[in-house]
Amino acid sequence: MSAPSERPAELDRSDPESEIAARAEAYRNWGRWGADDALGTLNFIDDAKRAAAAATATTGRVISLAQAFDMAGPQKGWRRRTNPVHTMLDTGTDAERGQGFPHGLGGADDVIAMPLQCSTQWDGLGHIFDHGFAWNGRRAGDVVTSEGDLVTGIEHAASVIVSRGVLLDVGRHLRPDTGELADGYAITVDDLEATIAAQGSTSAVGRGDIVLVRTGQYARTRREGWGEYAGGSAPGLSLTTAGWLHRTEIAAIATDTWGFEVRPNEFDAPAFQPLHQVAIPNIGLTIGEMWNLDELSDACAETGRYEFLLSAAPLPITGAVGSPINPVAIL
Amino acid sequence: MSAPSERPAELDRSDPESEIAARAEAYRNWGRWGADDALGTLNFIDDAKRAAAAATATTGRVISLAQAFDMAGPQKGWRRRTNPVHTMLDTGTDAERGQGFPHGLGGADDVIAMPLQCSTQWDGLGHIFDHGFAWNGRRAGDVVTSEGDLVTGIEHAASVIVSRGVLLDVGRHLRPDTGELADGYAITVDDLEATIAAQGSTSAVGRGDIVLVRTGQYARTRREGWGEYAGGSAPGLSLTTAGWLHRTEIAAIATDTWGFEVRPNEFDAPAFQPLHQVAIPNIGLTIGEMWNLDELSDACAETGRYEFLLSAAPLPITGAVGSPINPVAIL
Amino acid sequence: MSAPSERPAELDRSDPESEIAARAEAYRNWGRWGADDALGTLNFIDDAKRAAAAATATTGRVISLAQAFDMAGPQKGWRRRTNPVHTMLDTGTDAERGQGFPHGLGGADDVIAMPLQCSTQWDGLGHIFDHGFAWNGRRAGDVVTSEGDLVTGIEHAASVIVSRGVLLDVGRHLRPDTGELADGYAITVDDLEATIAAQGSTSAVGRGDIVLVRTGQYARTRREGWGEYAGGSAPGLSLTTAGWLHRTEIAAIATDTWGFEVRPNEFDAPAFQPLHQVAIPNIGLTIGEMWNLDELSDACAETGRYEFLLSAAPLPITGAVGSPINPVAIL
Amino acid sequence: MSAPSERPAELDRSDPESEIAARAEAYRNWGRWGADDALGTLNFIDDAKRAAAAATATTGRVISLAQAFDMAGPQKGWRRRTNPVHTMLDTGTDAERGQGFPHGLGGADDVIAMPLQCSTQWDGLGHIFDHGFAWNGRRAGDVVTSEGDLVTGIEHAASVIVSRGVLLDVGRHLRPDTGELADGYAITVDDLEATIAAQGSTSAVGRGDIVLVRTGQYARTRREGWGEYAGGSAPGLSLTTAGWLHRTEIAAIATDTWGFEVRPNEFDAPAFQPLHQVAIPNIGLTIGEMWNLDELSDACAETGRYEFLLSAAPLPITGAVGSPINPVAIL
Repeated sequence: MSAPSERPAELDRSDPESEIAARAEAYRNWGRWGADDALGTLNFIDDAKRAAAAATATTGRVISLAQAFDMAGPQKGWRRRTNPVHTMLDTGTDAERGQGFPHGLGGADDVIAMPLQCSTQWDGLGHIFDHGFAWNGRRAGDVVTSEGDLVTGIEHAASVIVSRGVLLDVGRHLRPDTGELADGYAITVDDLEATIAAQGSTSAVGRGDIVLVRTGQYARTRREGWGEYAGGSAPGLSLTTAGWLHRTEIAAIATDTWGFEVRPNEFDAPAFQPLHQVAIPNIGLTIGEMWNLDELSDACAETGRYEFLLSAAPLPITGAVGSPINPVAIL
Repeated sequence: MSAPSERPAELDRSDPESEIAARAEAYRNWGRWGADDALGTLNFIDDAKRAAAAATATTGRVISLAQAFDMAGPQKGWRRRTNPVHTMLDTGTDAERGQGFPHGLGGADDVIAMPLQCSTQWDGLGHIFDHGFAWNGRRAGDVVTSEGDLVTGIEHAASVIVSRGVLLDVGRHLRPDTGELADGYAITVDDLEATIAAQGSTSAVGRGDIVLVRTGQYARTRREGWGEYAGGSAPGLSLTTAGWLHRTEIAAIATDTWGFEVRPNEFDAPAFQPLHQVAIPNIGLTIGEMWNLDELSDACAETGRYEFLLSAAPLPITGAVGSPINPVAIL
Repeated sequence: MSAPSERPAELDRSDPESEIAARAEAYRNWGRWGADDALGTLNFIDDAKRAAAAATATTGRVISLAQAFDMAGPQKGWRRRTNPVHTMLDTGTDAERGQGFPHGLGGADDVIAMPLQCSTQWDGLGHIFDHGFAWNGRRAGDVVTSEGDLVTGIEHAASVIVSRGVLLDVGRHLRPDTGELADGYAITVDDLEATIAAQGSTSAVGRGDIVLVRTGQYARTRREGWGEYAGGSAPGLSLTTAGWLHRTEIAAIATDTWGFEVRPNEFDAPAFQPLHQVAIPNIGLTIGEMWNLDELSDACAETGRYEFLLSAAPLPITGAVGSPINPVAIL
Repeated sequence: MSAPSERPAELDRSDPESEIAARAEAYRNWGRWGADDALGTLNFIDDAKRAAAAATATTGRVISLAQAFDMAGPQKGWRRRTNPVHTMLDTGTDAERGQGFPHGLGGADDVIAMPLQCSTQWDGLGHIFDHGFAWNGRRAGDVVTSEGDLVTGIEHAASVIVSRGVLLDVGRHLRPDTGELADGYAITVDDLEATIAAQGSTSAVGRGDIVLVRTGQYARTRREGWGEYAGGSAPGLSLTTAGWLHRTEIAAIATDTWGFEVRPNEFDAPAFQPLHQVAIPNIGLTIGEMWNLDELSDACAETGRYEFLLSAAPLPITGAVGSPINPVAIL
């Protein structure tokens, strides 16, 4: 079999099944880290990588890469994905009137109900399956039941996801006027490489890096309203970047969009998130979505430095296939 | 007024109201960072502090300081604090049977319902009130209503809580045999200072630090079961440490216990979390609870280094008075 | 003071405060059933009333008056009112693969998160306040805190809300062509009385009855989509019906709309649900919303009988200010 | 095959698999109401049955048969079954301070998160499977996925579950001193028949009836605390009553216990809820659990009448395998 194409023009738009299968087969990392692996490409991060990343945090500036977690978010209920509902168990108005505590103590407590994919998040390795198979070649049903992901739950990554972060500000590079790619724009390997070249040496991407691809779509929603941010048209990675995701040996990747890859997907036949199908269960790649990369974009543009210490450990929710996060870039 | 005592023996055990009031007055930071402040002592952290902290992260080892988030947690329902309930919206067993997606794609999603104080967390500045007043002298009811904390919500700290962390392993210092303080043991200023002295120069505590006090109680529950971890007797800080918390100008403090301060509280009269009442609304101190400091304890004991880069940004849940977190120590 | 007007044309559209106050004062039932009352006009139901109602259930036909409880509902998140989120704790797909139970047993369990006002419901007496006062003249803050309605919680009505039901099919009476009132149509006392007269003797309304007013709006949404059903324009009762609600001594009333009363409300000045403000805290009237009265409408039109046994007991959720219900008409 | 025994002494306590299989085969109603059936034995209820039942409601007295829905309930988290968590979206304390509504309006709203099996409930037909098969012979995975019960969801019964109720007060009959059966007591066919005979003609059980079996365990928990009510030892129906459940052609049955059938189950080999396995997927019987039958018990004992109109329609939660309910007996 020849290597799958890295040019979208060469995709057979009528045959998503074959285009996915070719990439799944070509880039499959099953067994690479042993039969019991629960981390996939996060294994590319090692302590030396992190120590080097920490050494880049010379200014001490911290930028949160999280969107807000509240009812004003973009979710519309697709597959029961709602915005978070935050309610109070005790309040200050109650405290003023007395809550039964002694010596003038008052308290407020709160509770949240939310899909783990509602806002800024990691997709864990149990989030996507390919023909009934999960990461490392396991049967989907042996991994994720109603009790959760009993094998590759996000808690396994609790002390792992800290590494060198690299911002690839594709929106700003390709559209220096607006900084925003159009909805439906498919980011190619050439785009990624051109962005790296233009941004300079601090943008070099390699083993263990966590790559943040900014499309600018989130900035557009902040100006114009959410629109169809949750599942509608969006700029994002082309299916043809699968080989790049594999050969760069990056640990994880995140974007400022709902779904990481370009939407509509690059097929005329019915298709849904084909790059997820290659990346998560086959490459073993952890994917971040709905990140806020706008302040980071400005900061990197000002300094010309696109690397930083990225701290983005998930909440260790036992058996979760994803996690809400507040990733921070420490510059 | 003379300065409040730092010796528990000098507390008037019959009069929590006065003992609290004296400390609240003596250590109140209201207005120190302006009328609009939403951060309290987190203001002590600056970029230089963080850059210096990053410079200590020379090995790249990461230790998660979070307890698990699941139904096996310690909560028993006090004030409706339950353990997290994690349920699936889609599963691998469903994916094997087909979920209606094209080209062999399958997916799993999940949802969580949890008190924000259910497991490892930060208490935000809106969490505790003193006689109807919140941090910075605001009326409690002007700050936290059923709509949440509209003034000092935890989202304000989203890009703030990264700093130098210092472990004070009081459990190990005072009880070198077991590493665990007895339930009900009140940690004093002398204990804190003795631990610092014993641990050596990397344990010096000062402005902008985040201090982690290990009592060893969590280790005991892992061996013996939760028992009354959630609200029962526990080792913890004495009310008499309030002055130390204030004058050291630390940014935040966390322990491995449910409630940070010693329980039962140090009074014969009815009392409940008196040190919270001084620390949060008066000092403006952010407090962490239910941290897992055991692996960190071992790591620091091995190397003799007790400082590290601590990355513990909260989830930016709009209006929350607390946040579940996965704090990581980067050594 | 003269009695408030029953003609909408005589409302001062610039002065909702006075129009509400006049009716609140004129129709206030505070103290009518003693200082400790938790039922309001539900007290008008007695056993004899119910026995007579049961005697009308001669055909044994049962019609559910509930709308569905699911994610396809009308809620859009106003004041965090969402549609119900129903998730599974165990499934049949899991059971096929084995759940660890012996002898071939399998099971499915489920969980729901929902606002109590999300679909067909009763508004309890703690749901609405008038200038800080709740039903029977209590201070709102003495009744409903973050711990719920500690005085008039819906659980008090658990064995009460079974009585004679009467359908007033105003939509069908006023609009025999479509059966549907226009959005914004204010139902008057004359409309109610004319409907009763036209429907005949089984429609007479009196003490202890539960009156169901059908506007036809729900039928329209089933044909055209929800649109702004949750809070937008709707047919409903005019503020000028307050006196009728009081003097008929009905026990409760329900409609097929989101908000019971006409929307927009009948004022040029800012106004919101003025009839609620009179009816719930002052009259002590329990109000039902989002009922499905369409099948009942057809049944009553066919038989010419508009009375039935109505069984609509709330879930006894301790301290709730409302309850999801499945009311049934037994004809 | 001979008919399965109705005497517990003749059960082979080492072989639950065979004892269940024999009853499943003997009493299986698959296909009885057509291939598309979603109601099972609820089909035995017809309008004439309900009209006759309504005719017994001569006094108009209503008794709620629900337990409370709150955090003080018996659940301990088994299979993530928790007690309901009820929180407020708006409160009276907030209303006193002003919520932004015009003309003095204030409001309180609330939300609940609860397992559908947390308190008084119906088990729907999708709740239990037998060797991977659901009611009517369908594959479990074709019926209940993560999206819920797409075939026999509880919403199908929304206008069905109103019928003649019959209380069999086995606790009072067998233990006239206390009215309470011991935990672990297995109620036999002889016990049921003897109770019917003793209670007299209003207790005759037949087609379409809803039978309420009172053990007295709930009364004991109200006096002594929940103890192991949720899943521990309990009085309840013997597996040997399966034939009686089938041949009486009852529509549904409910008890005052957590699990309907006797616990521990009647086997020495590992066993779990064997009567459920026969009754729900094979007989097609709807089962109620955690009902409060104590006030009804007293009322029936006083009057000597054990029949009444039972109104117990489920909330029409789309796709639910159970429903919280407030059943009412109308006497």
